[in-house]
Amino acid sequence: MIGADIGLADLPLRDDLRGRSPYGAPQLDVPVRLNTNENPYPPPPALVADVAEAVAEAAAGLHRYPDRDATELRADLARYLSAVTGVQLGVENLWAANGSNEVLQQILQAFGGPGRTALGFEPSYSMHPIIAAGTRTEWAPAPRRDDFTLDTARAAEILAARGPDVAFVTSPNNPTGGSIPLADLRELAAAAPGLLVVDEAYGEFSDQPSATRLLAEFPAKLVVSRTMSKAFAFAGGRLGYLAAAPAVVDALQLVRLPYHLSTLTQAAARAALRHADDTLRSVHALSAERDRVMESLRGLGFHVVHSDANFVLFGRFTDAHASWKSYLDAGVLVRDVGVPGHLRVTIGTPAENDAFLAASKEIVR
Amino acid sequence: MIGADIGLADLPLRDDLRGRSPYGAPQLDVPVRLNTNENPYPPPPALVADVAEAVAEAAAGLHRYPDRDATELRADLARYLSAVTGVQLGVENLWAANGSNEVLQQILQAFGGPGRTALGFEPSYSMHPIIAAGTRTEWAPAPRRDDFTLDTARAAEILAARGPDVAFVTSPNNPTGGSIPLADLRELAAAAPGLLVVDEAYGEFSDQPSATRLLAEFPAKLVVSRTMSKAFAFAGGRLGYLAAAPAVVDALQLVRLPYHLSTLTQAAARAALRHADDTLRSVHALSAERDRVMESLRGLGFHVVHSDANFVLFGRFTDAHASWKSYLDAGVLVRDVGVPGHLRVTIGTPAENDAFLAASKEIVR
Repeated sequence: MIGADIGLADLPLRDDLRGRSPYGAPQLDVPVRLNTNENPYPPPPALVADVAEAVAEAAAGLHRYPDRDATELRADLARYLSAVTGVQLGVENLWAANGSNEVLQQILQAFGGPGRTALGFEPSYSMHPIIAAGTRTEWAPAPRRDDFTLDTARAAEILAARGPDVAFVTSPNNPTGGSIPLADLRELAAAAPGLLVVDEAYGEFSDQPSATRLLAEFPAKLVVSRTMSKAFAFAGGRLGYLAAAPAVVDALQLVRLPYHLSTLTQAAARAALRHADDTLRSVHALSAERDRVMESLRGLGFHVVHSDANFVLFGRFTDAHASWKSYLDAGVLVRDVGVPGHLRVTIGTPAENDAFLAASKEIVR
Repeated sequence: MIGADIGLADLPLRDDLRGRSPYGAPQLDVPVRLNTNENPYPPPPALVADVAEAVAEAAAGLHRYPDRDATELRADLARYLSAVTGVQLGVENLWAANGSNEVLQQILQAFGGPGRTALGFEPSYSMHPIIAAGTRTEWAPAPRRDDFTLDTARAAEILAARGPDVAFVTSPNNPTGGSIPLADLRELAAAAPGLLVVDEAYGEFSDQPSATRLLAEFPAKLVVSRTMSKAFAFAGGRLGYLAAAPAVVDALQLVRLPYHLSTLTQAAARAALRHADDTLRSVHALSAERDRVMESLRGLGFHVVHSDANFVLFGRFTDAHASWKSYLDAGVLVRDVGVPGHLRVTIGTPAENDAFLAASKEIVR
């Protein structure tokens, strides 16, 4: 192996990266994988066939660069998001990238960066501070209540007092599961001195209306990010997007890498969107299963944080990591998200949830 | 349209982005498109069928996240690169991302950034300074000779004197076309105090050996970046990669966004690599055409910069942009790369090159 005798210490790596580990849940081969909030239902055969056909057609032109602006895909996303949120959005309101992580990275490249600050209410999506670090944006963590809900009045005060350039609010929040009502989001948007990014990666699972309803009211402040990874069962396709004023989209085009979305990604995502009705049917099934899992866990004596998403945070464990290992030994992979005394379980198929609950029964003893 | 009354001036955009335009050549619908160094030959039908089949198979698992480390794809890239360069590389030496732009961005996130400097010998690939700006790395431009060749002794002095954290050398150089011999690259690597990135996006078109030959000698300094966009006729697939010591790959895993390469990209790129022999046959045809175009242009009285790539920089024009427009009026899209008095033409099919040469004959008059 060439260069195998060289280690990180021999490289001119940035000092702030030394000693760090790459982000990511363990990718383990376990019978029941309930650790990354994926949709457990494979795409329906009609969708798979449509993706294959669209890609076969697109592949004939692979020698050419893709449409740099992904116009047709963004128009399809605008139609989909308008339909599910009831807010009339056009192609100019939409932007897409390789997963919502890349969308968020572009937001921080344009509106964050050195000398600027991004704020989040923790515990929340752990990639927010990591993407802030990757773009050299100072990270300002702000607290939630002890029960993990957001104290809106306090949060608005914090936003006004600290004045972050970008603030993140995740609704439903990952890893705790609760949504934020529209009236509270309005209060936060009014208080935020800079950009307010509402991360709705799990929006389809929640009964609360989407923050897109507030875009007309706060066009120079509000950004709503979404993903096809969760409800859409398209985690492998890597497609994140956002809705915002057209000027925000213009700003992101100043920092995006040209041709960032491949011809294949654009074609496959468009094909998947044509099957939105089918795919989203699984959302109702998963929401019902989530409610069953929450109730069963409570019945077993666990403390359960109320969730509007496709996962549940539960506890309390004296040693969450030891309990994580007990689940693994029982063939169930859940997630230790670093919230003391708690673990997070993704809602799977009924059989997977049964396996998880059976393991929970053993572990609680 | 929601938020249409808001402009960039109303947003809390970073000051250094104000007044900028998004990078990218005009995507115009012109009969003969010779402006982005794409391979003019569509992928062969067997490759298209193989990509479609691989994607159809992968699509059934789209609800799951991709292999975060893209291990199989990187192993295939290692096999390909070992075969074409004669250097034995393993999966741990390879890293891949959505286009070589993303590879370069990750390099600057890990080894550049605020307080650090990246250097390039201009004119060269115009994305290098743009990616430096996007990662807040200070850009230090260094000169080439008036004939666009690199003065290696002078370049080595500059590297030693300025001490950039990352230095870029493009071979063959875009947009000028010349390659750098291995002995000169060795001199530059020895002189570079930080990382030396040899950008071999057009490597397959050159007779010069790949800089991968020097990896064993400079494991803590040398990075060789490549792409499937050009020789591979896979511009739409967005697959860039690099070869380096395993520690460099470890470093990039600290800054990469998790699951950055989609299941579809991994499957399609692997399928395309299985047809490398077929695809690369077009490289010989294009190299022969390049030599014909250079000779014909010289015959017409143009000044031609010697090229080892699939494009040619030529001139001299009193007003390059006006001449660019004359080509466009003649139905031929070439590139005004900002080198005074010169334009760059991508080598196309023989018919496209004939159309370009016919237009050149008119324009030279």
